[in-house]
Amino acid sequence: MPKSDPLEPDFEPRVRASFNTQQVMQAIGARLVTVGSGEARIELPFRPELTQQHGYIHAGIIGTIVDSACGYAAYTLMPADSEVLTVEYKVNFLAPAKGEKFVAIGKAIKPGRTLTVCAGEVWAYDKNETKQVAAMQATMMMVSKQG
Amino acid sequence: MPKSDPLEPDFEPRVRASFNTQQVMQAIGARLVTVGSGEARIELPFRPELTQQHGYIHAGIIGTIVDSACGYAAYTLMPADSEVLTVEYKVNFLAPAKGEKFVAIGKAIKPGRTLTVCAGEVWAYDKNETKQVAAMQATMMMVSKQG
Amino acid sequence: MPKSDPLEPDFEPRVRASFNTQQVMQAIGARLVTVGSGEARIELPFRPELTQQHGYIHAGIIGTIVDSACGYAAYTLMPADSEVLTVEYKVNFLAPAKGEKFVAIGKAIKPGRTLTVCAGEVWAYDKNETKQVAAMQATMMMVSKQG
Amino acid sequence: MPKSDPLEPDFEPRVRASFNTQQVMQAIGARLVTVGSGEARIELPFRPELTQQHGYIHAGIIGTIVDSACGYAAYTLMPADSEVLTVEYKVNFLAPAKGEKFVAIGKAIKPGRTLTVCAGEVWAYDKNETKQVAAMQATMMMVSKQG
Repeated sequence: MPKSDPLEPDFEPRVRASFNTQQVMQAIGARLVTVGSGEARIELPFRPELTQQHGYIHAGIIGTIVDSACGYAAYTLMPADSEVLTVEYKVNFLAPAKGEKFVAIGKAIKPGRTLTVCAGEVWAYDKNETKQVAAMQATMMMVSKQG
Repeated sequence: MPKSDPLEPDFEPRVRASFNTQQVMQAIGARLVTVGSGEARIELPFRPELTQQHGYIHAGIIGTIVDSACGYAAYTLMPADSEVLTVEYKVNFLAPAKGEKFVAIGKAIKPGRTLTVCAGEVWAYDKNETKQVAAMQATMMMVSKQG
Repeated sequence: MPKSDPLEPDFEPRVRASFNTQQVMQAIGARLVTVGSGEARIELPFRPELTQQHGYIHAGIIGTIVDSACGYAAYTLMPADSEVLTVEYKVNFLAPAKGEKFVAIGKAIKPGRTLTVCAGEVWAYDKNETKQVAAMQATMMMVSKQG
Repeated sequence: MPKSDPLEPDFEPRVRASFNTQQVMQAIGARLVTVGSGEARIELPFRPELTQQHGYIHAGIIGTIVDSACGYAAYTLMPADSEVLTVEYKVNFLAPAKGEKFVAIGKAIKPGRTLTVCAGEVWAYDKNETKQVAAMQATMMMVSKQG
């Protein structure tokens, strides 16, 4: 995978500022743990109020954290005066989202001027075991703030 | 689209009972409004704590309600002693999720013994306007309760 | 679904000219049967050399005709001096592609200035039976010929 | 990614025999180059009759080879008396399929008893340059030959 150079080396404060305005992240208890060039990691501790009928984290919440991880991975490579939107994503669920903590990793695999293709993973940490629970393939779009 | 006959005509209480154990639906304020043979509708009123950086409902939350709508659409056609799991889904976002209320409609387009393919839509109700904001294509799996 | 007005009412010759330069369509024997505003239909008669290991049309060939149907559905709504590219697609296979003839129908469900979201279907005609064998959800991109 | 052990160590002849009955692979000139446990590679030399309107390999043909690569990657891990079917796939196109030769790599990322999730890539070899042109995420299904 080719290493991408961010257009704006000082992307981290901009990415973190945007993340902090995603109220849903606070509501579910998700935290942006690391931001690198073309990569972002979001952590979500288990909470009973995020579960589906079997007591595991709902597929849609897993989708929510890995969508944001992919979006911010793409956003690290976008110009300073831009915003990022999700065009589409696809998620395969590999195992039930059972665990104490979930980590979503988003990576820009093909950055482009307008569209950036990302790959995402979600890993569950359950006692001594770490397991991949989801795989995402997504398209993100750069939107200029000037419209 | 062929009309599907449910294996168990009395599917509604079973579907509603499962929905009521999805704690995440209560946490976000979503309600299962209607359940029909091969179809389910979930309604979500706007809440600021579900928003992304532009003040619209987060793509992942839109994905969450339409995933559940598709899952329960499939579940209406499954045997009484079964459970439903999401294998994978793909969502395209057609417009920002801006509005007072969002309605996710899930439909089973190809029911099968093990796998059911579903199509989902999310509509935003904003003052006098109604707009489709997302389209989903998903695969759901029947899992026997006996294991 | 909102009815879309083509930017250029005389889209059909332009769409057909582009289709005729897709050499792969001639190679597999596919024909553009109808083109309407935001819609295109492609027909493929059965050929043994397009089959997979069970003697049915290969999933990828089904994907090929419905990708082109979606692409041209989107292209009917694009400006005259533009070209269309496939950003991504997702296909669910609903039944084996068994039959004498296959018809792919592409529809633009959300046309946009740059991106157009399309829905596609493939139907198999087998003696007295007609059956949907695939469902696609795709993103197409308008590319200006000037670059 | 966890290393998967094939149920049947002697999978290669079985995979190659199935590939050889995919008539479409011969028709387009594709060759199964390597088969490993949970992995398959298919090579396709450029041919003008596989092109779309810009003279590059059609997205659907790229989808065809990576679908087969993913299917056979999954099939290496399935029982001897089984067959493999494509449930669904999603492809993102990262760059035009321009080159002299294309290599599709399929990998089983989550093998299961019934369903196997695969990741696929297609690389274009063009003079001195090698470039990824597509990324796939797919679900394959094991079907017992006894039905």
